[in-house]
Amino acid sequence: MASPEIEALTQALARLPGLGPRSARRAVLHLLKKRETALGPLLNALNAVEENLATCSNCGNIDTTNPCGICTDPRRDSRALCVVEEVADLWALDRSRLFPGRFHVLGGRLSALEGIRPEDLTIDSLVRRIEAGGTDEVVLAMNATLEGQTTAHYIAERIERFPIRVTQLAHGLPVGGELDYLDEGTLAQALRARRPVA
Amino acid sequence: MASPEIEALTQALARLPGLGPRSARRAVLHLLKKRETALGPLLNALNAVEENLATCSNCGNIDTTNPCGICTDPRRDSRALCVVEEVADLWALDRSRLFPGRFHVLGGRLSALEGIRPEDLTIDSLVRRIEAGGTDEVVLAMNATLEGQTTAHYIAERIERFPIRVTQLAHGLPVGGELDYLDEGTLAQALRARRPVA
Ligand SMILES: [Zn+2]
Ligand SMILES: [Zn+2]
Repeated sequence: MASPEIEALTQALARLPGLGPRSARRAVLHLLKKRETALGPLLNALNAVEENLATCSNCGNIDTTNPCGICTDPRRDSRALCVVEEVADLWALDRSRLFPGRFHVLGGRLSALEGIRPEDLTIDSLVRRIEAGGTDEVVLAMNATLEGQTTAHYIAERIERFPIRVTQLAHGLPVGGELDYLDEGTLAQALRARRPVA
Repeated sequence: MASPEIEALTQALARLPGLGPRSARRAVLHLLKKRETALGPLLNALNAVEENLATCSNCGNIDTTNPCGICTDPRRDSRALCVVEEVADLWALDRSRLFPGRFHVLGGRLSALEGIRPEDLTIDSLVRRIEAGGTDEVVLAMNATLEGQTTAHYIAERIERFPIRVTQLAHGLPVGGELDYLDEGTLAQALRARRPVA
């Protein structure tokens, strides 16, 4: 049996998404064998993050500063606002570098089933951000699920009184998607949104 | 872009075996969102391990005490000694709970190719442990590779002068192994070591 300390470390790692008990043990062994080059740096990195961790009071992003790095980045177009369900979505879009504006994290999606209502999300604060002025376009980047689309429709209604452009991500065939492997819903969307050949 | 602190944490995690950049990002996001239940416990566990980390001067195990928990466990049979190549092998055997004795970690295997000689491994210290008395059996639990077996033969010769039993792990069909999926070497071993049906 490993010592209680090593056991606790294995369990803490095993609880991370993507790591099971087996890979956690391999990771721990690696950390123990590479004290200087793996354990030390990981410990320092965790400490640095833990000490500064903050939720951006502006957009809901999680970062080591508040406001977050995206909200304070002067190279970003503050007139375009991309609304997402979760921080993970923000990160995915940010990584793609395709959206040059700022973000707004709802903290979930409307769900009758799970009892998640508008006041459980940051929709009021989104409305206030738009009300404060300076926004030209709001991109609704909800998931292509029933709940995501319900949320997008609800938000679109809440902000239709503002003189801004409201758009949402296109739905259709994923790049490289083969028709006979696609689910019916995606096919239906792609057919409904069909466009004239350029 | 994530902050430098978050980026550093992602990279430290991505370097662990079994985690790539993608799963590291997911793990970081999980840690950031679960500061109290994931980030805190992981940080504490890493700190506790880092502060106490030691290589057992007796058997070569890595633990948070020296001598390690296995060497000091009074329930273990100190007369049986299992020799393994790496700490990972010790842990695997220890987890199986099939071997009730103690261990000796060589720190590798003899390899002409990699230029690893007997003096690069803890073979001298193994001989001294046996010389000191109290050992009845040495189990050579090297990997079933050419280098592992060369190492086992070398050690067997080095300790043949002691009045002890020297054994090695049996080779043959793995449990559940189907003949037509096995490599030729395993089949040959299994055939050579065939036994009368009980
Ligand atoms: Zn922000
Ligand atoms: Zn030990």
